[in-house]
Parts: sequence; C-alpha cells; structure tokens
Amino acid sequence: MTMKSAKPYIEENKQRFIDELIELLKIPSISADSAYKKDVILTAEAVKEQLEKAGCDTVEICETPGYPIVYGEKIIDKNLPTVLVYGHYDVQPPDPLELWTSPPFEPVVKETELHPEGAIFARGSCDDKGQMYMHVKALEYMTKTDQLPCNVKFMIEGEEEVGSVSLGWFIERNREKLANDVILISDTGMISKETPSITTGLRGLSYVEVEVTGPNRDLHSGLYGGAVANPINVLTKMIASLHDENNHITIPGFYDDVEELSKEEREKMAEAPFSLEDYKAALDIDDVYGEKGYSTNERNSIRPTLDVNGIWGGYIGEGAKTVIASKAFAKISMRLVPDQNWEKITELFKNHFESIAPKGVRVKVKPHHGGTAYVTPIDSLGYKAAEKAYEETFGKTPIPQRSGGSIPIVALFEKELKSKTILMGFGLDSDAIHSPNEHFGIWNYLKGIETIPQFYHFFTEMSK
Amino acid sequence: MTMKSAKPYIEENKQRFIDELIELLKIPSISADSAYKKDVILTAEAVKEQLEKAGCDTVEICETPGYPIVYGEKIIDKNLPTVLVYGHYDVQPPDPLELWTSPPFEPVVKETELHPEGAIFARGSCDDKGQMYMHVKALEYMTKTDQLPCNVKFMIEGEEEVGSVSLGWFIERNREKLANDVILISDTGMISKETPSITTGLRGLSYVEVEVTGPNRDLHSGLYGGAVANPINVLTKMIASLHDENNHITIPGFYDDVEELSKEEREKMAEAPFSLEDYKAALDIDDVYGEKGYSTNERNSIRPTLDVNGIWGGYIGEGAKTVIASKAFAKISMRLVPDQNWEKITELFKNHFESIAPKGVRVKVKPHHGGTAYVTPIDSLGYKAAEKAYEETFGKTPIPQRSGGSIPIVALFEKELKSKTILMGFGLDSDAIHSPNEHFGIWNYLKGIETIPQFYHFFTEMSK
Repeated sequence: MTMKSAKPYIEENKQRFIDELIELLKIPSISADSAYKKDVILTAEAVKEQLEKAGCDTVEICETPGYPIVYGEKIIDKNLPTVLVYGHYDVQPPDPLELWTSPPFEPVVKETELHPEGAIFARGSCDDKGQMYMHVKALEYMTKTDQLPCNVKFMIEGEEEVGSVSLGWFIERNREKLANDVILISDTGMISKETPSITTGLRGLSYVEVEVTGPNRDLHSGLYGGAVANPINVLTKMIASLHDENNHITIPGFYDDVEELSKEEREKMAEAPFSLEDYKAALDIDDVYGEKGYSTNERNSIRPTLDVNGIWGGYIGEGAKTVIASKAFAKISMRLVPDQNWEKITELFKNHFESIAPKGVRVKVKPHHGGTAYVTPIDSLGYKAAEKAYEETFGKTPIPQRSGGSIPIVALFEKELKSKTILMGFGLDSDAIHSPNEHFGIWNYLKGIETIPQFYHFFTEMSK
Repeated sequence: MTMKSAKPYIEENKQRFIDELIELLKIPSISADSAYKKDVILTAEAVKEQLEKAGCDTVEICETPGYPIVYGEKIIDKNLPTVLVYGHYDVQPPDPLELWTSPPFEPVVKETELHPEGAIFARGSCDDKGQMYMHVKALEYMTKTDQLPCNVKFMIEGEEEVGSVSLGWFIERNREKLANDVILISDTGMISKETPSITTGLRGLSYVEVEVTGPNRDLHSGLYGGAVANPINVLTKMIASLHDENNHITIPGFYDDVEELSKEEREKMAEAPFSLEDYKAALDIDDVYGEKGYSTNERNSIRPTLDVNGIWGGYIGEGAKTVIASKAFAKISMRLVPDQNWEKITELFKNHFESIAPKGVRVKVKPHHGGTAYVTPIDSLGYKAAEKAYEETFGKTPIPQRSGGSIPIVALFEKELKSKTILMGFGLDSDAIHSPNEHFGIWNYLKGIETIPQFYHFFTEMSK
C-alpha cells in the first residue's frame, strides 16, 4: 500500500484551508495575559470543532488546573501503531503593537520576497496555530480519502507560551489514554524552502523574574542621588556581571552538566549551509556577538545562554523626571543544553543573583517556568519515517538540525510516555514568530499538509 | 519702620489660603506630557488671576516658544529696591499612580506624624505650587496691610520640570523688565521645622536619554539567544561600566573641573545635625551606598553623581515572553557641582557612551536639558536679610546648607540679570516631591507666608 499524493486534494480545498486557519487566528488566545482568558477558552472550543469535522471519533475539552487541553482520537485498529500529535492553540502576546503593519488578530494574506505565493500575517500564524492546523487538515485528507493507515491521537494545549504549566499534571493522569508509538510535533522551523530539515535537538529553558528594591519610595535624584543605592544602577551592575569578558556566564556551576560535543560533531554541524553575511544583513547588524570560541550556529544551539527579555524601572514616559526609583525589574531567560537540569539551573541562578546584591538593596528572584533540553536520535524509527516523507514531497533528504529554541515538554513526553518525538517543522526563521508581523507562508502550510500523511504511511509500513 | 508680624492676618485668612492653594493644585499642569497642554495653560491663567488679586499692578501672560511665563509687578517707587520672585507652576508627572493613597490632582489635607497640623497631599503641593503661592499670599498681606516696603516683580514659569527650556529666551528679551536687586526663590527645603536652613549651593544637571539598537526587529530568544548582541544586556553592561568599584564615575574628564572643598569646609559641613540611623530607617535601607571617601551628606551635595532615572526594553507585561528586543532605552541624569559645565559634561558623556558600544549595536545619546551648579555667598546682602527674617519668625539663626538638587536657572539669573539668588525653601525632605504622595505641611506653608514679608523688610532696610 502507498499513500497517494495529497496534492490534488490540497489544490481543490486550498482556499477553504486558508480561510479556516484565518478564522482560528482571529481569536486572541494570549495565555500570558489573563485579560484574554475568554478568548483562550473560545480557541479550545474552535479546535475541538475542527478536529471533529476532520474525522476524529471522539474529541473532548479536558479541564486542567490551567487552560484546558483538547484531546481527540481516531482509533481504527488496536493492532496498528498510534501517532500522538501535539500542538498548542495559545499564542505569544503581540506587543509591541505599533510595529505591526496590520493588526495581529486581523489576519491578512500578503506576498513577500520569500513567499511569492503569499503568507498569512497574524499572531500565531506559524507558532503554533498554523503548524498545528496542518495536522488537522492532514487528518481530514486521510479520512476523506480513506487512507488513514494507523491510529491517531491529538493533544492540543493552551499554555505552551507560558511554560506548559498544566501539561505534566494532565499526562500523569492520562498515561493510558495518551499511549502511543511516536509523537509528532510541528512547532519548529526548517532551513529554507529548498533545504528541508528536521529538528533533532532543542534547548531547555529557565525563565525568571528579578526585582531589586532600594529605598521604600521613589526619591528625588537631586536630593538623594549618589547617597543611596539606585535600584536601576544596581540591577544593571548585577546583570552585567552575569557574563564575563568572553561572554561566558559567571554563575558558579552553570556549565557543570553541559554536554561537550566532539570535534567531529562540531565539524558536521559546520557543514550546514550558512552565510554569516546574509545573517548579519537580514538583522541589519554590523557584527554578531556571543561566547568566545564558538560559531554563530553553535552559540544558538549547542551552547547555553542568558538573555534579558525585558527590563523596567523608574520613569519611562515622555520627557524627563529626576527620580530614583524604589524598584527595578527584569525578566531573564536561560537557554539550556543537554544535560543541564532546568530546576537546578534556576536554583543556581537564584542563589547567585541574591548573593551578588550589594548592601542597600533587597533582591527577589521569582522562577517563572522551565524545561529540559532534548535530542532526538536520528536512527529511530520515527526519524527515518520522517526522512522518507520529506524525500517523497520535497525530493530531497532533510538535514538533521539542532535548534536553539525550547519545547520543554518533549523531555517530559519521553519520561512519562516513553516515546520519541519527531519535530517536523515547516516554518522559516524569517516568519518572525514572537515578533511583530509574524507570518506563515501558504506554500509552507500546504507543504506541511502534503508531507504529514506520508509520515503516517512510512511510519506504519516501517513498524510492521 | 518695622514689618508687623503677619501671624494675626494669617490666622484670620488661614482657611482661604489653604482653599485657594487646593484649587490651584487641582489642575494637572504636567509639563513633561503634552497630553496636559491645556491644563498647563489653564494654570498660568489661574496664577495670573491670583497675582492680580494679591495686589500686582500689572500681570501678563508672556508667550515663549514653549509654555508661557506669568509676569507680574507692583512698583511703588523706582528709588526703592526691587525683589524678583521666581517660581514655577508646572509639576512633575505623578506616576507611579498606583502608589498614591489619594489621587494626585484631588488634594486632601491629612495629618501625619511630622505634620500634626495637617499637610496638603497633591502633586505640586510643595514643588512648587505651594511654595510659589506663599509669595503670592505674602504680597497680599503686605499690600492689604499697606506695608510693602519695596518694589516686587514675579516671574512664574511653566517649564521648570522639563529644564526651563524657554526661560533663557525670555530673560534675554526682557532684561530691563526683569531688572532687580535680589532674586527670591522658594523651591528647596529646610532641615526640619525646628532647624531652619537656607540653601546656599545647588548642583547642576545634565539629563540625557540613551537608545541601544541591536537587530532590526524583536527576535525569538531561543533561535537567536547567545548569537546576537541583546540590546538590553549590552545596555546594562554599558551603564554598569559608568561607575568603577569605588563608585567613581568613569567618564574620562568628568571630574576635571570639580571644585575640591578644603578640609575646613568639609569639617564645617559635618557639623550639620544628621543621623545616619534615622536616614536609613526613613528609607528602609540596610546601608547607604556611594562614592568611596565621602560621607552621605557630601555625596549628595558637593560630589557629582550619575543615576539612571528610567530604563525600559523588551517584554514588561504580565507573564513571560522569550524575546530579544530590538531596542533598549534609559534616561540618565548627572548631578554636577561647581565648576562643572553642563554642556561640556553632556558632550563628554555622549562621546564616552558612544565609544563603549560593542560591535553589533548602534547607540544614540539624546541630550535632554541641563544646568550649571551654583553657590550663594553667605556674606551677601540678600543672604543676611534672609537670615534676619528667619531669626524673626523662627527665633533661630538658619543654617546655610548645600543641596543636592538643581535649579539650573539660578546660574542663568546671575549671568543674565547680574543679581544674587536667595533660596528660602520651606519644604521638608519627607514631603516626597517627585514621588507618590507629595505633600506640604500647612505649618510650613503658613510659616513661609509669615517669613517672606520679613525678608522684604530687612532687605529694604539693609539696602539703605
């Protein structure tokens, strides 16, 4: 048995596939901001409806301590393998709003240089509503054309952008229901439309918020300036000290568990097509920056990092105010690599940051969330099936690639469900996920819908 | 001739004096925020009306390139001395609003430990509407009781909190109109209700805003973290480097023109009553912080300083966003001492800050405004007259005191109008000017109204 190419079906239903995704993108399911609670719930309901229409036998909205998880399944034969699709229906906050060329929750199709076929501009278009929805449409294709070769389960959550806080709770309580042979996720990218790739490594994450308190109230900088610790000045000094002159992170013990790649592995990585000039030009920067002794591609994949994601304190309005703020804040995230444990790293950060506070201020470190890094073995059945699927639809063997991003739940899946995860991402670096003007190429969207059924086919065949 | 005590007149009119000030405080004349333009203008008109009612012969609202200056005068005899009163009717922005216990522009009288007679809580109650209005009421007393001993001119501006940007322009064009023998300002504080003091030194100011730009858009910190310069991390490093381990400022040439006080002068300063324990307790800090080798009172008066007044960049909303911001910003002010030139210092800062930017970011420094430091000689006629006035109403000789704050226009007055400025401030450190819950003690307000006429008297007598 083979899987017929989905191309004709996609061509016939293309406009509907786009319109349906646009409807989903209109709901501002921002999990980080409680003002959007209603919209997050509405999105879960919309996903449920679409899973039913696509052919799932049962779909439920499962309550959790946080936002609900949409679970759907179509079991055709208990003796056949089962694919578990994971995705998320929540999105990042859209700010800074003023940089969007069209409103983040009013999706529009626009042509770009990379996407002459058009791209859908909206928050979540790529991350992850668009990529998640490819799986829903792939299921539709397989059920409508009677070609579904195995069982399928869907687990679509609403808290990925805030650290998947309820997912562990849910999995623990539903191990049997979620039992599967392979987990399939599209929440990453590929090198380019011409160079398909499969993500085999993900960085872990530790996200914290810090607060520095000096005097008990805002002070006049003329009367107190120079005589009391200014929480903003202190915070800048404390953050600055977290990197040394070689951009190594100075937190004691931070590198203790970092997996060091062999010379061979690093050489193989260096073979991936990459132009430093193009990279710099695309970001309009005159130079890259990072840890001494590592290349750009190493810095953002196999090395841990520490970045301030937000900082604020004092007067930030128009004009001038001569104030010494009582408090200053920062949001700081660390990307982790195998085998760093995110909880240990969070603890190391907290202890170190509190220890470097000078007299005259008080420091609080509030852990937000985290996740452990993950590497997919390229000799696994799932990886091999994915490789064949790409060969079928792209006509090329995909390149295995380590990514700098984090999907913390992949390590959790392995631990709790004992199965491997395959990261079939169809986004591009230029899709501006987490940024203003996020978009997802229609070509990429449809290519995903075309490729996914082939994975089901090869995975089932190879499992025999 | 003597000046009769204003006490009985004040007692009789006390409630009206408070009510009139409260009306003025209701108008949110925030010069830093253009949204309040109408209110700033309305305040100028209210001040004009009050000056007329208090006895000025002519009052005009003088247009400038910015907010208008209210000018009023009462000339009784060209051969008598002329006092020029300066004040400002604009106020600081009130944020952070959530820390006010009552709305900043809905004045209320509340009792506090230091003010058992009650204090008026409102933005501008002390700085400077309340202190400026003492002069209006002092004039009322002198005219209504036929005791005005000399000529008086008022110049009340609306841009003090944004650097008095139009004042130089106005003075240049009105030297003759503004001609005077002494300038009187109440825009400072005194040590305590029991220890009257007169400010004899003011620090200068250079206020700048800096912008650090990295990549041309916000980036996903997972995909780019560690591989490009993060503008917030870079900004913290740059700001941190502006002080060395002894809290000396590292800008080359910064200290070149700083006046070094003699051992004797520093010893005399150290005699002023000061309790480090009370100071720390009032601010709820476990230690003070500042330049090595100097005491707290020296750090905030005779030494120049550099403070971040505001910082912002990246995601500062609720929850977590894993973003590398394209830009980061800070507002930075430097307090200057004699004989530092603020324009030179601004230039030194700009050159230095731009020079320390690492590759991978672009840095902009935008000078906001500035002013030169000033010292009033205590052997001047004006100082001696003020001293006598305080002796009359407080029964104590006031202590000459250097202040850390800046009223940049005092140096300008000396240069353009060739006269000395006397800083008779009646506020207290605890009045929380520039902070939430700014207030002005009713005792202080009335004591000012009582003391000012005595200054007119002694200054006129001593000028004979």
